[in-house]
Amino acid sequence: MGANELVNRQIILKNYITGLPKESDLEFISSTLTLNLEELKQSKAGEDVVVVVKNLYLSCDPYMRGRMRDYHKSYIAPFTLGSVIQGFGVAKVILSNHPDFREGDLVSGITGWEEYSIIPKGSNLTKIKYTDVPLSYFVGVLGMPGFTAYAGFFDVCSPKKGEHVFVSAASGAVGQLVGQFAKSMGCYVVGSAGNKQKIDLLKHKLGFDDAFNYKEEHDLDVALKRYFPDGIDIYFDNVGGDMLDAVLGNMKVHGRIAVCGMIAQSGVQSEQGIKNLYQLVPKRISMKGFLQSDYLHLYSKFLESTINFIKEGKLVYIEDIAEGLENAPSALVGLFHGKNVGKQVVRICDE
Amino acid sequence: MGANELVNRQIILKNYITGLPKESDLEFISSTLTLNLEELKQSKAGEDVVVVVKNLYLSCDPYMRGRMRDYHKSYIAPFTLGSVIQGFGVAKVILSNHPDFREGDLVSGITGWEEYSIIPKGSNLTKIKYTDVPLSYFVGVLGMPGFTAYAGFFDVCSPKKGEHVFVSAASGAVGQLVGQFAKSMGCYVVGSAGNKQKIDLLKHKLGFDDAFNYKEEHDLDVALKRYFPDGIDIYFDNVGGDMLDAVLGNMKVHGRIAVCGMIAQSGVQSEQGIKNLYQLVPKRISMKGFLQSDYLHLYSKFLESTINFIKEGKLVYIEDIAEGLENAPSALVGLFHGKNVGKQVVRICDE
Repeated sequence: MGANELVNRQIILKNYITGLPKESDLEFISSTLTLNLEELKQSKAGEDVVVVVKNLYLSCDPYMRGRMRDYHKSYIAPFTLGSVIQGFGVAKVILSNHPDFREGDLVSGITGWEEYSIIPKGSNLTKIKYTDVPLSYFVGVLGMPGFTAYAGFFDVCSPKKGEHVFVSAASGAVGQLVGQFAKSMGCYVVGSAGNKQKIDLLKHKLGFDDAFNYKEEHDLDVALKRYFPDGIDIYFDNVGGDMLDAVLGNMKVHGRIAVCGMIAQSGVQSEQGIKNLYQLVPKRISMKGFLQSDYLHLYSKFLESTINFIKEGKLVYIEDIAEGLENAPSALVGLFHGKNVGKQVVRICDE
Repeated sequence: MGANELVNRQIILKNYITGLPKESDLEFISSTLTLNLEELKQSKAGEDVVVVVKNLYLSCDPYMRGRMRDYHKSYIAPFTLGSVIQGFGVAKVILSNHPDFREGDLVSGITGWEEYSIIPKGSNLTKIKYTDVPLSYFVGVLGMPGFTAYAGFFDVCSPKKGEHVFVSAASGAVGQLVGQFAKSMGCYVVGSAGNKQKIDLLKHKLGFDDAFNYKEEHDLDVALKRYFPDGIDIYFDNVGGDMLDAVLGNMKVHGRIAVCGMIAQSGVQSEQGIKNLYQLVPKRISMKGFLQSDYLHLYSKFLESTINFIKEGKLVYIEDIAEGLENAPSALVGLFHGKNVGKQVVRICDE
């Protein structure tokens, strides 16, 4: 191994999936990363711009399932078979001839699931300016999931004080923040999740007015009527399926549904269709699918207000941190079985 | 029979329905309408206000199916069993002590399916001011269906010039106008309908760019891709069901769906659910159910611009007029089997 080579451990995609991802769809391998330091130093900034980073934290997000499929019509391309997979991460710059980044800078953005990544030209790396919060927050509450919650709730849902809000997958990366944003607006908020530990967190730590375990309910319609006897104004949908169907039957007139979470089903036909959609007309319900990337004009406002919330202790944020790149596949797969409690992150190494 | 009594022929509801209405669910009867002229004359205006009308035209609308069901949770109450049913109509005032209406006035609004009606206090009768268009237009292009098309297309769909628009049930009361409004905006418009006569009308009389008979298509997805190879910006949904599912797979990014027509299913679970709803997220689709009654602030603008369109010959309007109250039940039932060509109206008598 030459002086310009590093051993680089990686997670690669072994095969495209059809249903839910399994750990065996991914492989933990060692490869060699060649860094031609001489070439890098000689290239002029702006021409052959290169940034090499050491990855610190990786984010496990439901949308990644879509990239594990051999489906090319979505808003984002599939991963390359046999190559390292990508996702949001926090990293440290170890080499750069890019004018905006210097060695030692902490950055967030799309990176590889590996120890070291050469960031391709044109990538949207962001320099991390706030270092008085944990670095992992920049793939969570201060990253894509946090911004998804912010844009989805404040813009898509058009909330008003006192409205009744329901959030599914409520203890997850997005849901826990939606609930707290809703409380900050003076709304009544109930969340659903899949085990007792999550319900306890929602009720006793995350400030939800109430919460229920959907797995313990025989009839979701009955459960929703218990918490929303007068109906639901806003549903922040992280799951689709049966829960959405039950919610449609419990929406109030002029209710709004922000559809965030069927993203996990991108390109996959639901086994059972949604049967209560006829409720849209008599109740004049608005239903809107959204992606945070359409709301980037709100990003700086989001970052400022959310970081202030955190500093003032007004926002609780729960993470589930897996240790070591070798545990990244099980952390990602666990997302689709509700194993994570809070935002799922992988720590590759300390800063 | 006294001097203050009139023989009044009526259509009454015999039983509540579960599926589609049948002619035998309705009955054509004769009853006696007592008009106490003395009492009417003596009551002061504003106290016991009474308006008695002679009905001229009745409107057959899909939403009426919802009122034939024993279902009390919708936005409008069911009809009373054994009593005359109601709907939009055009009528002539024959007696009035209401300050706004005089004998001989032509009015539109909710009336009974009968020859003569006593209009209940608090009803929203409107005096017809434009008499240089056919009177039946006031239950169609200038009435609720016309306003539904106008508010639904211009407000709910937020159309832009050049966008690609699809309309289902396109030759119906609402659809034929949506298509023409869309053409007036410079959109490309395709409609679907259920027989050759309707397709011919859409293509050769109503100005649609193209049209297809959905009953002749084995695969609605393939049909839509033929007319919209680059996708659909706006879908004006008058039907729901399989067509909606196929459209979801053919919407463009940031597409909009105005849901007008699942009203016919109010309170009835679809046999088969909608399976392509997951498309909402990656395509960021907005889907909104609406009722024209939420847009009354646009009504006078609608009336003025639509009447001008008609006078200038820029708007074609097709009606299917059944003759005689005795034929009203079959006209109404026919709606749900696509028998009408254009807006279904019943003429009870001439002015």
